[in-house]
Amino acid sequence: MRLIGWLGFTVAALVAGTTAARAEDGYDLWMRYRALSPARAATLHRDAQAVEIRGDTATLRAAADELRRGLTGLTGAASLQGSSTTAIMLATASDRDVATLRLPVASLGDEGYVVRAASIGGRRVTLVTANTDRGVLYGSFALLRHLQTGGTLAGVALSSAPRVKLRVLNHWDNLDGIVERGYAGQSLWDWWTLPDFKDPRYADYARANASIGINGTVLNNVNAKPESLSPRYIAKAAALADVFRPYGIKVYLSARFSAPIELGGLKTADPLDPQVAAWWKAKADEIYRAIPDFGGFLVKANSEGQPGPRDYHRSHADGANMLAAAVAPHDGIVMWRAFVYAETDPDDRAKQAYTEFKPLDGRFAKNVIVQVKNGAIDFQPREPFHPLFGAMPRTPLMIEFQTTKEYLGFATHLAYLGPMFAETLASDTMARGKGSTVARVVDGSLEGHALTGMAGVANIGRDRDWAGSPFNQANWYAFGRMAWDPTIGAEPVAREWAAMTFGASPAIVGPVTTMMMGSREAVVDYMTPLGLAHVMATGHHYGPGPWVAELKRPEWNPVYYHRADKAGIGFDRTRTGSNAVAQYAPPVARGLADPATTPERDLLWFHHVAWDRPMASGRTLWAEMVHDYDRGVGYVGGMRRQWNALRSEIDADRWTKTDRFLAIQEQEARWWRDASLSYWMSVNGLALPTGAAPPAHDLAWYRAQSFPYAPGNPQ
Amino acid sequence: MRLIGWLGFTVAALVAGTTAARAEDGYDLWMRYRALSPARAATLHRDAQAVEIRGDTATLRAAADELRRGLTGLTGAASLQGSSTTAIMLATASDRDVATLRLPVASLGDEGYVVRAASIGGRRVTLVTANTDRGVLYGSFALLRHLQTGGTLAGVALSSAPRVKLRVLNHWDNLDGIVERGYAGQSLWDWWTLPDFKDPRYADYARANASIGINGTVLNNVNAKPESLSPRYIAKAAALADVFRPYGIKVYLSARFSAPIELGGLKTADPLDPQVAAWWKAKADEIYRAIPDFGGFLVKANSEGQPGPRDYHRSHADGANMLAAAVAPHDGIVMWRAFVYAETDPDDRAKQAYTEFKPLDGRFAKNVIVQVKNGAIDFQPREPFHPLFGAMPRTPLMIEFQTTKEYLGFATHLAYLGPMFAETLASDTMARGKGSTVARVVDGSLEGHALTGMAGVANIGRDRDWAGSPFNQANWYAFGRMAWDPTIGAEPVAREWAAMTFGASPAIVGPVTTMMMGSREAVVDYMTPLGLAHVMATGHHYGPGPWVAELKRPEWNPVYYHRADKAGIGFDRTRTGSNAVAQYAPPVARGLADPATTPERDLLWFHHVAWDRPMASGRTLWAEMVHDYDRGVGYVGGMRRQWNALRSEIDADRWTKTDRFLAIQEQEARWWRDASLSYWMSVNGLALPTGAAPPAHDLAWYRAQSFPYAPGNPQ
Repeated sequence: MRLIGWLGFTVAALVAGTTAARAEDGYDLWMRYRALSPARAATLHRDAQAVEIRGDTATLRAAADELRRGLTGLTGAASLQGSSTTAIMLATASDRDVATLRLPVASLGDEGYVVRAASIGGRRVTLVTANTDRGVLYGSFALLRHLQTGGTLAGVALSSAPRVKLRVLNHWDNLDGIVERGYAGQSLWDWWTLPDFKDPRYADYARANASIGINGTVLNNVNAKPESLSPRYIAKAAALADVFRPYGIKVYLSARFSAPIELGGLKTADPLDPQVAAWWKAKADEIYRAIPDFGGFLVKANSEGQPGPRDYHRSHADGANMLAAAVAPHDGIVMWRAFVYAETDPDDRAKQAYTEFKPLDGRFAKNVIVQVKNGAIDFQPREPFHPLFGAMPRTPLMIEFQTTKEYLGFATHLAYLGPMFAETLASDTMARGKGSTVARVVDGSLEGHALTGMAGVANIGRDRDWAGSPFNQANWYAFGRMAWDPTIGAEPVAREWAAMTFGASPAIVGPVTTMMMGSREAVVDYMTPLGLAHVMATGHHYGPGPWVAELKRPEWNPVYYHRADKAGIGFDRTRTGSNAVAQYAPPVARGLADPATTPERDLLWFHHVAWDRPMASGRTLWAEMVHDYDRGVGYVGGMRRQWNALRSEIDADRWTKTDRFLAIQEQEARWWRDASLSYWMSVNGLALPTGAAPPAHDLAWYRAQSFPYAPGNPQ
Repeated sequence: MRLIGWLGFTVAALVAGTTAARAEDGYDLWMRYRALSPARAATLHRDAQAVEIRGDTATLRAAADELRRGLTGLTGAASLQGSSTTAIMLATASDRDVATLRLPVASLGDEGYVVRAASIGGRRVTLVTANTDRGVLYGSFALLRHLQTGGTLAGVALSSAPRVKLRVLNHWDNLDGIVERGYAGQSLWDWWTLPDFKDPRYADYARANASIGINGTVLNNVNAKPESLSPRYIAKAAALADVFRPYGIKVYLSARFSAPIELGGLKTADPLDPQVAAWWKAKADEIYRAIPDFGGFLVKANSEGQPGPRDYHRSHADGANMLAAAVAPHDGIVMWRAFVYAETDPDDRAKQAYTEFKPLDGRFAKNVIVQVKNGAIDFQPREPFHPLFGAMPRTPLMIEFQTTKEYLGFATHLAYLGPMFAETLASDTMARGKGSTVARVVDGSLEGHALTGMAGVANIGRDRDWAGSPFNQANWYAFGRMAWDPTIGAEPVAREWAAMTFGASPAIVGPVTTMMMGSREAVVDYMTPLGLAHVMATGHHYGPGPWVAELKRPEWNPVYYHRADKAGIGFDRTRTGSNAVAQYAPPVARGLADPATTPERDLLWFHHVAWDRPMASGRTLWAEMVHDYDRGVGYVGGMRRQWNALRSEIDADRWTKTDRFLAIQEQEARWWRDASLSYWMSVNGLALPTGAAPPAHDLAWYRAQSFPYAPGNPQ
């Protein structure tokens, strides 16, 4: 007879929630607020027995609620006792008692904060203050982060202000619920039940964003449908804006340039047509009546089939300025994307955005900001910084990163993108001499622009864990933290994320951070080593497709990008090729003009070189490529081992999901390596270096793989 | 100064789980297991201090785990103490000690159970026993249901065996994650990460199904893609089967009839072609290697564009029998749908399934069961029972209900379908005289068929609450309970569901059951009163479209179904019309031949009658229609008031979501009424009866409404 008592289960079940189904499923993100050690919890409880607010705004209440939620969790309820003689106090700097403290709040702007011990009305409190309630909200989250990552109230002294004004997510969410390049389920927005039903999750989304400083969200796909500007959908957007407002988050909409025709019944969308301008002005007025703090429009025009001003022989500036005039009376802005390339233009695709936008420098209205992808192609595992950065001094440029991993293995590959964001931001454009980093273009300090921004294409969907895996959450987190401060660095962000998400013990934070920090480079290694790009399969971009050569537009084909032949591999972007290097500032361009002075990581991006070219390692290019593919595969194996060693430290559900995903990643990294090598060998006729494992299948097998139902690829 | 202590929050937070995000979100379905009153909890704890199992199978372990989970919740951990002197014991009837009890287990079959007090080895225990471990599992859930709905262990005596063998869900889930006619989010199956990652939710899905006796699930849409039978997808299905197996749930697949061409490279899918038969045999063998207990195939053939045997001038029996031969060696079955109609057939669509299948009676292999929708058209709010029931005595027929509300307002309308299921099941076919109910056709008792089944088109998706709203869960629940026992009755099922889902107090169960019981009739009233059908808008079937007349196939147009003209309204299916009534057994047909002896609720389904026809109420038909529309709208208003009165009894999240959905429903009920009346008035030229409110808009406004992104409508 087998006897199982159930008595032993009960206390754990009570603490964990209701049923076993309420395991750690990732929903809490980095806002887990699990109990500190008893000693630290007791200290925290002693020092913060109440949360008090001065003044009463929805934002201050949201900040106080979050602190209460956090303190309740961090202290553990059992330790609570005593009366409220100690407190955390939330107040804006205009509060009379706070003003008398003469804190250095002038430099905080609208969103910065100070957190420190202070004497208020004769009591010692932990004061969270700022010039606005939004600043207090950010300070409250900063304090919680401080406590979650090992900090204490004693001696706390936090102060920060964002270096970038617009910190926005771009949701590529379609009105039918499908998220383009989304790998975390359906759109978070249940357009069908909005505005009548507001899912409680919308508020949790806002909390998560506010916790990392994100202050704007573009609700719909840049490949926009006109209906998103119809009265019915404006009401839906307004309902979301109502939920987000207390968290300091503005709503933006992607606008379809031809909407005056489709919605308005006009015969044209010519930006210089007065009727068109009037239609947009009326539309903007209509939106602002529903959403008084509407942020403005994001526009993808004349790119990949989208309509735009070029359809009417007008410039991008003509189009952007017409829209900007419509929102200007309401203090709205226009984010105009520079991601353009035309099938009618035979020039190197990497050059086309610069070619088209550089001449427009200085011609944009002052409430227009041009949104430029981090690199000149399209969110590859690695790209050199976009040559427009530094090249349009009279135009505010915001940078656009992808936090979703369209080209980096979708949700199942662990790839922490912090190092990628940091790499681009730290790149030196040399536009005004050494130190003219992309970060300084983006934060406006290089040219003195006040309108600054950073956009992240969201990796968020309706999956329970928001981002498709626990580790994908880190890319959302890192985007927000780096938009607040582009110089913060990828590793500190990884460390704090790991501590908040999995636990602050060094036994967790150390190995998790180590895994994360090399993970994106591993993807580069097994997908696109040494500057290769866009060798993914067609459409969905899942898996290798370096052999693809038959698509209609030349620049849709991987062979366009790698140009591998018997003699060598790589895209010659020097003077003997497309001369894209000339788009960079002269000192940068000079270095890139010669393979010898080009960083090896970007070699094949800029140069077509021989397979037997000697590399710094002493290996030939071919042997180096094989070495890189193997290093990438090996790194994933290493992550699996590191994760396995963490089994006892991490809850079962998140551990298991990550473990299974790492297994998928290792298998797919090997697939990438084997398929790529099979193809390169079919081109160069070379043997594998001694010791390198032969591919598991022949090239025909890899070419035959087909994934008609890969996610994130509408139509 | 505003001071808010946070001390008061903490105990509640500890009990409720971790953070505010862990509110009651509906995930637990009817398996909530919330604590009983202290007195009842103490008694339960005293009488069941342990759960013991004899024998060790995955199914017995699953049963014991569920009882432990349930008892832990129901008793509340705080009340637990003492040693395990009392127990619930799970054992099959072959256990030596159980066998000596000589319990009446012979009639229980493979799935029935007995739960009662017994003396085992000298101890008094609560025994859950059955001939198989699956029976024990069902008994365990029955015991939990008993405890959740007010029952006690003292004197417990439960025994039941299912009256229907195949109790299966049909998931219309596409491989890209879109659920056809799904209104609860994406497909539960994350095909992309299967088989490597098994979401813990799959096991909760299996628990929920086992708890209501569902023993099979067809994973993919009847509009099937060939890839679902490819090795890659067979492996994914096998992973799900592994999760479901302990819960007694078999996996089935929808098969695309032309798969031998698309997957196999054959030139034909002719069922009489030996190569085709061999391909299917090899495919079945391949599936059974991966899934040894694979259930079999579901096939939609020659219907709405799907390929089938008619493409080769073969009969449905030829097609079904060929597939049946492929799975027969493995004890598999084929469920072959009778839902066929052809654009080339000008006859009344309601007649075509009968016309095509009736002559095939007796020609199907013995492991084929023909799946017939409850009515002859397509899952309307009300349909008379399908004339095939009773008309194919030599063929096992399974009934197919829709639990998803394609034609009943999607997820946002509260419509408990129990009364609809019960109404059809209780309908008397008169095939072998009085009492030849559809239920007796379905449970096989009328003709002595052993192969019996009931299919429910699932309303389940990845939404947190599974079914899109708390009340939609009741339709999943009712389907399972009625498949187990087609005579159980809609109200008892509503009562037990309400008690388990919201709380067993009469103050909850009473009003919730009242709301539910009239809710489907309300939808009939405000959408399709008096036998109207298929007057929904095109494609998505959301909202009214009685004016639609321009679609290519005549039977796609609402005007085809209602045939309203100046003189009258309704489809004449008597001898002067399509004579569909002749498809029923003579006593039924005789009654339906005359409007005077046709139930008024089906009047316009069978007859074209004058607008001024006097009705039983004394009103004219036109006044009766208006009255019904108003009654439907009024019922929703009543539900809103009843729900409002329950505010203090229901948790905030589920209360609020339901409240908002009822508001949507009321608004849309009014829209249905107003749009329908506007249109009927444009046809009949009549005024509204005195006192009836005029429509809010003119007909043009209603006709102009457009919903291009309505859910559940792929392509």
